Amino acid sequence: MQNSAPSWRTVRARPDADLAQLKELAQQLRVDAIRASAAAGAGHPTSAMSAAELLAVLVARHLRVDTSAPDDPARDHLVLSKGHAAPLLYAALVAIGAIDDDELLTFRQPGSRLQGHPVPGVPLVDVATGSLGVGLAIGAGMALAMQRLEPRASRIWVLCGDGELAEGSVWEAVEAAGSERLDALTAIVDVNRLGQTGPTRHGWDLGALRRRFEAFDWRVLDIDGHDVRAIDAAYRTASETRFRPTVVLARTIKGRGVRRVADQPGLHGKPLEDSSDAIAELGGPRSIRIVPPKPLGSRPRDRRSSGRQPVQLPVWPVGSRVATRDAVGESLVAIGTGRPELVVLDADVGDSTRLGRFRDVDEQRFFQAFIAEQLLVGAAMGFTIRGWTAVCGSFGAFLLRAADMVRMAAVGGTPLRLIGSHAGASIGSDGPSQMALEDVAMFRAIDGSAVLQPSDANQAGQLLEAMLDWPGLSYLRVLRGETTVRTPARPRLRIGGSREVASSEADRVAIIAAGATVDEAVWAAELLEPDGIRVRILDAYSLKPLDVDAVADAAAAAGGRVVVVEDHRPEGGLGSAVAEALAGRGEPLRLVHLAVRGMPGSASPEEQRAAAGIDGPAIARAVRRLAETRDRPDAPLQGPAA
Amino acid sequence: MQNSAPSWRTVRARPDADLAQLKELAQQLRVDAIRASAAAGAGHPTSAMSAAELLAVLVARHLRVDTSAPDDPARDHLVLSKGHAAPLLYAALVAIGAIDDDELLTFRQPGSRLQGHPVPGVPLVDVATGSLGVGLAIGAGMALAMQRLEPRASRIWVLCGDGELAEGSVWEAVEAAGSERLDALTAIVDVNRLGQTGPTRHGWDLGALRRRFEAFDWRVLDIDGHDVRAIDAAYRTASETRFRPTVVLARTIKGRGVRRVADQPGLHGKPLEDSSDAIAELGGPRSIRIVPPKPLGSRPRDRRSSGRQPVQLPVWPVGSRVATRDAVGESLVAIGTGRPELVVLDADVGDSTRLGRFRDVDEQRFFQAFIAEQLLVGAAMGFTIRGWTAVCGSFGAFLLRAADMVRMAAVGGTPLRLIGSHAGASIGSDGPSQMALEDVAMFRAIDGSAVLQPSDANQAGQLLEAMLDWPGLSYLRVLRGETTVRTPARPRLRIGGSREVASSEADRVAIIAAGATVDEAVWAAELLEPDGIRVRILDAYSLKPLDVDAVADAAAAAGGRVVVVEDHRPEGGLGSAVAEALAGRGEPLRLVHLAVRGMPGSASPEEQRAAAGIDGPAIARAVRRLAETRDRPDAPLQGPAA
Repeated sequence: MQNSAPSWRTVRARPDADLAQLKELAQQLRVDAIRASAAAGAGHPTSAMSAAELLAVLVARHLRVDTSAPDDPARDHLVLSKGHAAPLLYAALVAIGAIDDDELLTFRQPGSRLQGHPVPGVPLVDVATGSLGVGLAIGAGMALAMQRLEPRASRIWVLCGDGELAEGSVWEAVEAAGSERLDALTAIVDVNRLGQTGPTRHGWDLGALRRRFEAFDWRVLDIDGHDVRAIDAAYRTASETRFRPTVVLARTIKGRGVRRVADQPGLHGKPLEDSSDAIAELGGPRSIRIVPPKPLGSRPRDRRSSGRQPVQLPVWPVGSRVATRDAVGESLVAIGTGRPELVVLDADVGDSTRLGRFRDVDEQRFFQAFIAEQLLVGAAMGFTIRGWTAVCGSFGAFLLRAADMVRMAAVGGTPLRLIGSHAGASIGSDGPSQMALEDVAMFRAIDGSAVLQPSDANQAGQLLEAMLDWPGLSYLRVLRGETTVRTPARPRLRIGGSREVASSEADRVAIIAAGATVDEAVWAAELLEPDGIRVRILDAYSLKPLDVDAVADAAAAAGGRVVVVEDHRPEGGLGSAVAEALAGRGEPLRLVHLAVRGMPGSASPEEQRAAAGIDGPAIARAVRRLAETRDRPDAPLQGPAA
Repeated sequence: MQNSAPSWRTVRARPDADLAQLKELAQQLRVDAIRASAAAGAGHPTSAMSAAELLAVLVARHLRVDTSAPDDPARDHLVLSKGHAAPLLYAALVAIGAIDDDELLTFRQPGSRLQGHPVPGVPLVDVATGSLGVGLAIGAGMALAMQRLEPRASRIWVLCGDGELAEGSVWEAVEAAGSERLDALTAIVDVNRLGQTGPTRHGWDLGALRRRFEAFDWRVLDIDGHDVRAIDAAYRTASETRFRPTVVLARTIKGRGVRRVADQPGLHGKPLEDSSDAIAELGGPRSIRIVPPKPLGSRPRDRRSSGRQPVQLPVWPVGSRVATRDAVGESLVAIGTGRPELVVLDADVGDSTRLGRFRDVDEQRFFQAFIAEQLLVGAAMGFTIRGWTAVCGSFGAFLLRAADMVRMAAVGGTPLRLIGSHAGASIGSDGPSQMALEDVAMFRAIDGSAVLQPSDANQAGQLLEAMLDWPGLSYLRVLRGETTVRTPARPRLRIGGSREVASSEADRVAIIAAGATVDEAVWAAELLEPDGIRVRILDAYSLKPLDVDAVADAAAAAGGRVVVVEDHRPEGGLGSAVAEALAGRGEPLRLVHLAVRGMPGSASPEEQRAAAGIDGPAIARAVRRLAETRDRPDAPLQGPAA
C-alpha cells in the first residue's frame, strides 16, 4: 500500500470548468477516494468510484455553495444518502478547498471528523448518513420547507445508491415529493448495479427504475453516469424543471476506472489492494482546485423573523380533568402563534394526537406526511436543517416505525421533537397494536435524548415549550385519557426535574410515578391513609434526564422502600431509570416495580390498569407489603405485586 | 343505542351463492359490524362498511378455508391489513359459522378474543394487525414460502386500506412480490378515499394507484368495490393470473349504506350514533350463513418432513479466536443441513452477518429481501405462519427499521428469530451509523422476548440452536470482531442462563459482562491480579431472561460491589437488567455501570472500547475504586468510571 503525497499537477479549473477538466476532476476524486481508503485500510472506494463523475459535475457546475459562508440560507444542499461513499465526498471537499489533503488522509482515524460515514461538522454535511434510505426523506423535508415557507432558488441534491431504493423509506419520500411537486429536489441515483452481497434487484434495468419513479410523478432522466456532458445536461434540466422533482438515473460501473475491480462483485466495503497500481491506472494524482458556483443570494422575506410575539401558554385550573394530548394541541396553537419558526408535521392522526389543531394557526406551517412515519421524521429533520423548529408526532407506538431515522438524527446531532400519543395500556379498548408500551425504552436509549411524560395538562404545555430548545431528541409522551391537573402554572417545570405530589414527614414508602400513573398513586395514597400508611409521591415527568437527586432523596427518606409504577413494559422505562439511578449509591434498596407485563387485550382504561397491576389498589397493595418489611426485612418482594 | 338480538331472517346461502345473496350478505356484514361497534361503544364501523362487499364475496366464493380444520396447510390465508376494520371480519366469522352472534357482541370487551384490532386466536386470523402497513409484507412472505417450498394452489388475500399505501413497508412488499412474481398473492385495496384526518393523498384517483402498482409489475384490476359481480370477476381473474401478483383497486365509499355517514370525513373510528336507525336503513339484521369454499386439499411433498437429521453443531476449541458472526454462519449451515424446515432471510448484508453462508445449504430456503428490513421481518413472519422456522438478520442497528413490525409480531404471538450483527462500538472505524447501540433496549422491551449476547463462538452456536424453539421474539446479538473462545461444547447453554468465567473464593468485586466485554473483563482481572484484587466474572449471555439468581449470588458474594460493562448505551441494556434484578432485594448495592456514553466516531475496535471506557483498563479502574469502598463506604461511585 503506497500512500505518499501526490506529485501535484498544476491544474486549476475555471468556475466554468470545461468538459475535459470535469473528466480530470472525476479521476482526481477517484484517486483521492482510493488514497483515503488506503490510508485508512478501510472504506468503500468502489462505491465512490462509480459516482465520481456524478459528484464532480455537481460540485464544479451545479451545487451552489460558499464554503466561506456555510450557513447562507440561499445555499444548495447535498445529501450523500449513500453515506458509504464518504471518501468520494471528502475528495470533493479537497477539490473545492474546504479541507486539505492532509486531512483527507485522516479518513476514519480517531479524532478525525472524516468518519467512515459522513456526519455534520464536515463541510457541506448537514445530516448523518450511513444507514441507507434516510437521505431522500430529509431532502424532501428541506425542499418542502423552501417551497412552502422560504421561496428561493436554491436546490436540494440527494445522491442515492441503487441498492437503497429497496428501502420503503425511500418510497415514502418519493411519493411525498411527487405529490407535493417539489421541483427543488433532485435525486441522483448511482445505478452501479451491485449491492453489498451481489447484484441489486434491478441491476442496470434503468427502465424498471424509470417506470417506478414516473408512476410517482417524478421527471426521470436516464444517462450514462460516466458521461460528464450527459450529467451536466441532466443537472441543468433538473434545475429548470418546474412542478416536479427530478431523478437522474445514472448507469455506472462500481469500481470504474480500475480494470481489476470494475463491476466486480465481492468488493463492497473493501479498500483496493495495490492502491498505487490503481492510482497509476487512473493517471496518478491530480491537484485540480475548483470553485463551486456561488449561491444566488436571494434573500426573500423570512417568515421566521417577522411577527414573533411572547408566548402565553394556556393554563388549566388545578383540579380540572384534561387529557395531556389536548393540552399539547392547545399549547401548540399558543406557541405557534407566538413563534413563527414553529412547524408541525402529522402522520394522518392529527385529530387523535391533537397536532392537527395547528392547522388553525397556519396551514402553510402544517405538513401532512400521511401514514408514513419515516417520512414524517425525515421531513422534520429537513425542516430543522433549514432553520425551522419542527415538531412531529403520531401514536407513540407507530413512531417506532421511524426508530432508525431517529437514531440517525442523533448520530448527526439533528434536534428532533417527537410527540407520541396514546401512551400505554391506558388507551383502553383499541388493543395492544395501538399502545405505546416500548417507546420509552427505545427513545431513552437514544444518545442525548430527553424523554418526558407529563401527568397533567399544565405539565404537557410547559414541557412542550421546554423541549423546543433541547439540543437533541426530545420525546413527549402524552395520554389519550384525562388526568387530574395538579401542577400549577408556576414555577415552570424543567427538563431534568420532578415534582413532589404528596409527602408526609414520616414517609414509609416512596412512590415514583409518571403520566397516567400519578393519578393512580394519589388514589393509592387515599386508600392507604385510613391505615396511617404515609407515602411520598414523586412525579418523575422527566424520565430522562431523571431527577436523580429527588429520586434518591425520596428513596432515602423511605429507607429504600420504593414503588415505581409506570404504564410501559417493565424493561427500559421509568423503573429501569430509577433502578439505574439508585443502584450505585450503596444504600439498601427495596424497589417494587409495577409495569405492564404480558400482552393486554381490549378493555376500558380502568380495566387495563387494573389488569396490568398499575392502578391505585395495586399500588396500595405493593406499598402495604413494602411497609411491612420495616418489621420483617426478609419478606420476599421481587417481581410484580400479585 | 338499540342493540337487541336481530329478528333473524331465514336466509342460508348456498356455497355457490348467487349475486343477490352476496349483496344481502354484504348488508348483513355492515349491520353486524355496526351492531358490534354499538355494543362496544367504540370501533371503526365506517371503515368496515366500505369493505363489506369486498369481504362478503371473498368469504362466500373465493377464500378457501375450513374452520373445522384451521391448520390445513392447503387453506387460503386472509390478512386484514386494515386491522381497524376488525368488526367486519368478526361479522364475516358469524356468517361462516366460526363464531356465534353472542360472541360478536363481546367485541372489545375484557376477556373477549374479539379485540379492537384482530389478533390470532380468532378464526382465520394468523397475525396481529392494527399498525397499518404490516399485512402485505407478511402476505408476501407466505406467498413466497408456498411458491418456493410448498407448491400448492392456495392463495393469500390481503385486504388493505388506501391510507396505508403511504407506508414504505407496503412498497417494500410490493417490490418484492412483483419481482418474485408471487402470483398466489392478491392485495385488495379498499379505496374509500378517506383516511383518519381527511382525504387520502390520492382520493379516488384509481389511475394514480394503478400506475404505481403496474410500475412494480403487478396486475392491476380496478373496480367498483360495491359491485359484487365485478368483485367476483376480479377475484377470479386474480386467482387465474400467473407469474404476477394482483391488486384489486376497489373504489368504495366509507360508511357506505347509511346516508348520514357515507363519505363523510371526521367519522373515522367512531361508532354510529343512532345505530338502530342505521341498521333499519340497511334493511335490518339478517341471518345468512354461508360455507366458504373448501381448501383444494393438495398435499404435495412437504420438504419439512423429509431429510431431517440430527444436528451436529460445530465446536471451536477453547482458546481460539473467532467472531461470533462467523460462528452463526457456520452453525446455520449445520442446523439447516439437519433441519429441513429452517429458512434464512437476508437484507443484502449476508456476507457481513454471515447469514449468506446458508445459500450453500439450500438456495431455495434462502431469501434475499435486499435492503428492506420491514420486508425482511414481515416475510420471516409469513414463512413462520406457513410452518417454517425462519431466521432473519441484518446489522443490529438496521433492524431498528423493523421495530414496529417486531412489536406487532409480539402482539400476535408470532415467533421471530433475529440475528443482529455488528454490535456496539467495537465494530471500529465504520462509525456510529453502523453500530448497534440501542438494539438491546428496544428488543428487551418486547413482551416475551429473549435477548442473547454470546461472547464466543461456541455460545453463538448453542444459543442460535436454542432460540429456534423460543416461542416469542428471540434476538441474537453478534460481533464483527473476534473474541476468545472460553465456553466448552458441553454443557449446553440455556436461554435464561449465565456462565461463570472466573471466580475466587475471596471475591471483592463482581464483574458482569456480555459479548465483547467478556474478554475485556478477563483482561481487567489480569491487570488486577498483581495487586491481589480478586474478581468474579459473570458472562450474562442471556440479557433477557436474565439469570437473576446467578447475578444476585455474584453480587452478594462481593458485598454488593458490582461492575456491569457493556457495549451498548447506558439505558435499557445489561446494566438496566442487572439494576432491575438487584433493586428489589433489600441489599446494599454499589453498582458501577460502564457503557457507551456520548457518540463514538471512527477508530479501531480497541480504541473505541478505550474511548467508551469499557475496555480492560477501564474495568480495572472501576474495580479498584469499588474495592476501596470496603474500607471507605462513603466514596462516590455514581456514574461512569473516569
